[in-house]
Amino acid sequence: MPHRAPGSPHHDQTSYLSGRQIRYYRPTGSPDVRRLIDDGFQAFNAARLSEACHIFSEKMLRPEHDTTIGLTVAGALTPAGLGGCMIELMERGLVDFVISTGANLYHDLHYALNFTLHRGTPFLDDRDLYEKGVIRIYDVLFPADVLLETDSYIRDFLARKDRDLGGPLSSADLHYALGLDLIEKCPGCEEHSVVARAAACGVPIYTSSPGDSSIGMNVAYHELMNGGRVVIDPNRDVNEVCAIILAGKKNGCVILGGGSPKNFYLQGQPTLWEVYGIPKGGNDYFIQFTTDQVVWGGLSGATPSEAVSWGKVNPGVLPDTVVSYCDSTIAFPLFCEYAVGSPNGRRPRRGLLHQRAGLVADLLRQAKARAR
Amino acid sequence: MPHRAPGSPHHDQTSYLSGRQIRYYRPTGSPDVRRLIDDGFQAFNAARLSEACHIFSEKMLRPEHDTTIGLTVAGALTPAGLGGCMIELMERGLVDFVISTGANLYHDLHYALNFTLHRGTPFLDDRDLYEKGVIRIYDVLFPADVLLETDSYIRDFLARKDRDLGGPLSSADLHYALGLDLIEKCPGCEEHSVVARAAACGVPIYTSSPGDSSIGMNVAYHELMNGGRVVIDPNRDVNEVCAIILAGKKNGCVILGGGSPKNFYLQGQPTLWEVYGIPKGGNDYFIQFTTDQVVWGGLSGATPSEAVSWGKVNPGVLPDTVVSYCDSTIAFPLFCEYAVGSPNGRRPRRGLLHQRAGLVADLLRQAKARAR
Amino acid sequence: MPHRAPGSPHHDQTSYLSGRQIRYYRPTGSPDVRRLIDDGFQAFNAARLSEACHIFSEKMLRPEHDTTIGLTVAGALTPAGLGGCMIELMERGLVDFVISTGANLYHDLHYALNFTLHRGTPFLDDRDLYEKGVIRIYDVLFPADVLLETDSYIRDFLARKDRDLGGPLSSADLHYALGLDLIEKCPGCEEHSVVARAAACGVPIYTSSPGDSSIGMNVAYHELMNGGRVVIDPNRDVNEVCAIILAGKKNGCVILGGGSPKNFYLQGQPTLWEVYGIPKGGNDYFIQFTTDQVVWGGLSGATPSEAVSWGKVNPGVLPDTVVSYCDSTIAFPLFCEYAVGSPNGRRPRRGLLHQRAGLVADLLRQAKARAR
Amino acid sequence: MPHRAPGSPHHDQTSYLSGRQIRYYRPTGSPDVRRLIDDGFQAFNAARLSEACHIFSEKMLRPEHDTTIGLTVAGALTPAGLGGCMIELMERGLVDFVISTGANLYHDLHYALNFTLHRGTPFLDDRDLYEKGVIRIYDVLFPADVLLETDSYIRDFLARKDRDLGGPLSSADLHYALGLDLIEKCPGCEEHSVVARAAACGVPIYTSSPGDSSIGMNVAYHELMNGGRVVIDPNRDVNEVCAIILAGKKNGCVILGGGSPKNFYLQGQPTLWEVYGIPKGGNDYFIQFTTDQVVWGGLSGATPSEAVSWGKVNPGVLPDTVVSYCDSTIAFPLFCEYAVGSPNGRRPRRGLLHQRAGLVADLLRQAKARAR
Repeated sequence: MPHRAPGSPHHDQTSYLSGRQIRYYRPTGSPDVRRLIDDGFQAFNAARLSEACHIFSEKMLRPEHDTTIGLTVAGALTPAGLGGCMIELMERGLVDFVISTGANLYHDLHYALNFTLHRGTPFLDDRDLYEKGVIRIYDVLFPADVLLETDSYIRDFLARKDRDLGGPLSSADLHYALGLDLIEKCPGCEEHSVVARAAACGVPIYTSSPGDSSIGMNVAYHELMNGGRVVIDPNRDVNEVCAIILAGKKNGCVILGGGSPKNFYLQGQPTLWEVYGIPKGGNDYFIQFTTDQVVWGGLSGATPSEAVSWGKVNPGVLPDTVVSYCDSTIAFPLFCEYAVGSPNGRRPRRGLLHQRAGLVADLLRQAKARAR
Repeated sequence: MPHRAPGSPHHDQTSYLSGRQIRYYRPTGSPDVRRLIDDGFQAFNAARLSEACHIFSEKMLRPEHDTTIGLTVAGALTPAGLGGCMIELMERGLVDFVISTGANLYHDLHYALNFTLHRGTPFLDDRDLYEKGVIRIYDVLFPADVLLETDSYIRDFLARKDRDLGGPLSSADLHYALGLDLIEKCPGCEEHSVVARAAACGVPIYTSSPGDSSIGMNVAYHELMNGGRVVIDPNRDVNEVCAIILAGKKNGCVILGGGSPKNFYLQGQPTLWEVYGIPKGGNDYFIQFTTDQVVWGGLSGATPSEAVSWGKVNPGVLPDTVVSYCDSTIAFPLFCEYAVGSPNGRRPRRGLLHQRAGLVADLLRQAKARAR
Repeated sequence: MPHRAPGSPHHDQTSYLSGRQIRYYRPTGSPDVRRLIDDGFQAFNAARLSEACHIFSEKMLRPEHDTTIGLTVAGALTPAGLGGCMIELMERGLVDFVISTGANLYHDLHYALNFTLHRGTPFLDDRDLYEKGVIRIYDVLFPADVLLETDSYIRDFLARKDRDLGGPLSSADLHYALGLDLIEKCPGCEEHSVVARAAACGVPIYTSSPGDSSIGMNVAYHELMNGGRVVIDPNRDVNEVCAIILAGKKNGCVILGGGSPKNFYLQGQPTLWEVYGIPKGGNDYFIQFTTDQVVWGGLSGATPSEAVSWGKVNPGVLPDTVVSYCDSTIAFPLFCEYAVGSPNGRRPRRGLLHQRAGLVADLLRQAKARAR
Repeated sequence: MPHRAPGSPHHDQTSYLSGRQIRYYRPTGSPDVRRLIDDGFQAFNAARLSEACHIFSEKMLRPEHDTTIGLTVAGALTPAGLGGCMIELMERGLVDFVISTGANLYHDLHYALNFTLHRGTPFLDDRDLYEKGVIRIYDVLFPADVLLETDSYIRDFLARKDRDLGGPLSSADLHYALGLDLIEKCPGCEEHSVVARAAACGVPIYTSSPGDSSIGMNVAYHELMNGGRVVIDPNRDVNEVCAIILAGKKNGCVILGGGSPKNFYLQGQPTLWEVYGIPKGGNDYFIQFTTDQVVWGGLSGATPSEAVSWGKVNPGVLPDTVVSYCDSTIAFPLFCEYAVGSPNGRRPRRGLLHQRAGLVADLLRQAKARAR
């Protein structure tokens, strides 16, 4: 066998894993951090970050605006320990639904299941890591066993719940069921798991590429090997997100990174006007932290301005849109400190997870009315 | 109604659309271009592009290596007219399967349906474009009607074919059916449509995020409004791609951009060892054109080296991997000119589209054998 | 006259200048910020920023290491209000000398002379700004008069001091003379001027491209129009910086951005071994905040590792080097908060400005000894 | 001695230096390449590159426009073998003057002196390179001796010519003298040296940061060790470049990379209106190849648009400005192929090198007239 799989015999793995354990940091609303952002972040991307804080805290969260807020998550944020920021926002009602890469949700399970990820460095010999059974996500390190055991949990979960879940379901359904199962199996894990906390808070979590993560890989295994019936139906995801957006009095988003989750969120408004014929209008608020660039042509870098021509962003609201070019691992904790410490730092939770059926029915009714 | 939808009354749209029509450019294998790449591209990303040309032409395409080659496509490449490069590669047997964002496939349909996209500029007032019903993809411009009529074609296609397609299917099945339908409706369109040509050539096309494009939006409409039964089952995509990779004597990829298609391709090997327990080993060749950076943490920027620790790339083959940091709109046509003009510039077509059932059965058999 | 010069009649300028006044923010050493950096910045560039804080505070500033620390400054940092961070570091003895683009020093004079720069936005019509006599540096806005009056001050200064300054001098000499003149003309301005404070603190400030800024433009005017004798002699800059580095027990740098100031600093060690034949060895510590990338080939993006092959960085110290990819406007205030609040947050000032003659004599003596 | 200097005893250096020799590639005006650029480069940065080719060939080079064209050069272009493109442009009269980093000129001397640089890879252990006396510029490799012998040539040249050069001179004077000396010492070297060819063609070459390169380092050595009198006077550079721009009927630039050379070129117009009071107007044409981004705030990324507010670019000509985001090592050879093959691919050489005194006298006369 020419290429040994990671996870096979290894020695000296421990030296790679000697860095501090990564824990979900929970923002506390520090006045010092708020002062630094207000007075010290005056120009360039620092000013954009400051603007993002103000738009979020003073406009999107203003009670009378009643903004339905989506958070999209791309990039390895849960491995980097930023799940604590997501938990804090969900718990305080500051985000209403989430669209994430599958990888962020998969790696969140490690925290729920009490596995440990470590701080490390990106400057390692990957051939040796492979030999020693150590997995690297840039500078985050953990044993390959963490993958194997998390996979094993997922397959066990699928086998146990196949009857309940069976048949096409939305990714929000799957993540909800996962979250409830985690809370049951590992009581208290909602303190350090986004998936578990979202289930507890009634926040639906979608993924735009259901087959593209270790969760999706294991669902596929379950279908092929066990004849399992769990299938993510992307149609339901499209329609549920559309319905949530349609129901929003105002709509706004916080986009971490970009990628497929960003596009999936932003296509909600075009789906309404272009496909369903419902003139809802675009987003009222748009905040993005990214390091991608519009000139490189990917959607991650596409600006709120370009989104206007597609009806994704309201033409009149460009002042309430902002892109701050900064690594989310730096910008997002600062942004959350600011939001948590703001006078609007807590809202009633909207509980969208449990209202999806009604919202989709509304979408159907409005679309039928237009189609006449 | 505060925000008028694009496509409503517009005037002066024509002035925005006065740029040259975008046509699919077909590489011809120019010796001059090959000489420039060999002698003029000596260092930095020019040298990486040159290396990519050599690895592809001399190693991946070498007959005795019999490499199964995946092409992943992210970024607005069909709107930019690069579908002609993809067609040329498929027609010559130089790529065996494709994983693409849905957007690239959706916009490819415009060419098949004989709609026109125009060269333009990114420096326009998007509020005015919106008023005039002009859609902008960076510097590519076209009327909003192109969207509406393409959507209309897709919904009509779904209604006509619902019975045949009905029930969960892989995205390759859907794209194949679309391609056949286009060829039937618009004979000759396989000269200027990737989706149509792939159907004709037996090249399966997958999308990693089935709900995340206008195709997915219209499939979702079909389900909600018509009770349609067309559902993309991501499990089938995962298993088919896995099976294709497993069957490869050698495996290699050409990655344009990155994003979710890149990850979806690269997770094939980990699915085999991590989930199915089959020690296939990682990729033997890895070529990427991107402008994303590893230090920004997104997978698009993750290097072949990082992929080694995950078992995605074989530890021994790092010399046969290359990342050239360059906009695909510049690098890909140069790369294709080089490949087409090379002595290995044509291979027998593998016809994977029609072998999928057998390959998945092999995957199942091997996985069952390992599970014992 | 086809193109009207800015600064000519304008109206409505005030609306452009209605944003908050930019003031030099002074870091105070907030424990909250330190906690966020220690506990919340765990991976990716956040972790690199955290590492930079630790290397600086715990290693470079450790009293027994007695590190000679250079700060290099590129990018519009004084216009962005980051001069306060530089002042705080100089005042506390945390940087010993500075290499800056001329532009940062030129724009620092506006603060000293009590002119006002304003927070703004990058999304403006530059043709209208030009008409209205408003100058834009990305999102920083100010009247063209600020340029004209600052220029006028510089020319007046040169005329008054020509006799004292006359003849070739180092850029540190010129900046010192400017600083003293500012303190005399605008008492108290050392609280809000880097150039003035550096003069007061004995910190030499060099510029690597003396003709490349409005200061250089006015010195050139002075020579051409007045027959002035003020000439920056780049040789003196090279030799003084070399001599400072040679005298360092340990050497370390904080590099903001990159560009010519970075290279000018880093060539110090090669000048010693390659040109003068003195085997001093490379830097012991290396911290950079940049958004440039090594793969683009510019020196701004060149890594500490590449610098090793040139003898710019000691081969053994790579663990004490770090590059955090982040806009300096975000990273530098956070870094300074951390440093100021650290136990080593104050050092005796080294007063290199006044030791240069002796240090250069030492360099000459050692070089002569080697040449024998 | 703790850190051994490169260039000391080494073994196995040859294996590092086994890559193909880098040679200056000379563009030939291939019609195939022109066709690819015209028909295949239709959108995104490919389209910008195509636009740059058209603006240059059809507007800037049009005989009746008589455009004075500056080329600015940053990034390691001569090490990458792009000096041949520069030679071809100078020889054909397609650029009139050059502003370059010192490093590009210094490394050009290796080619003139018949030293060899090699193609390599960036993935090497720099500590071992250092041990083996191999210098690395990203993926370009050569022995440390090349530095030492090139330095030795420069110091010898300075010693021989001190009397002739002595006293403050412009960097164009120094580079001219160097070029003449090279031609004398190594006849024929103007075929493979930018510095030599520029001297032969009468093209002045400036450097914006005279102390910031190995040339500057050796001039500084000459002053300190030999009491040499060679001093680059940045004032002369500023005034000569200003005078050249003032004399242009139309002005245009080709900017490779960005950095200090870009700024130095672009400050020409502001020097005229802001300092000398001469309303010349800004550039008529502006072409830049860069990978830097405006959102990062460095001048390399600053757009033609921002330059308008400073009077650096004419407000009316934004359509004749273009930035193509692409590594110069890829874009510049393509651009030069296009230009060389164009109907305007040859112009009478302007010979600015020998007209500088007259042009500066004109500048002085006009400035005096305005000052009255």
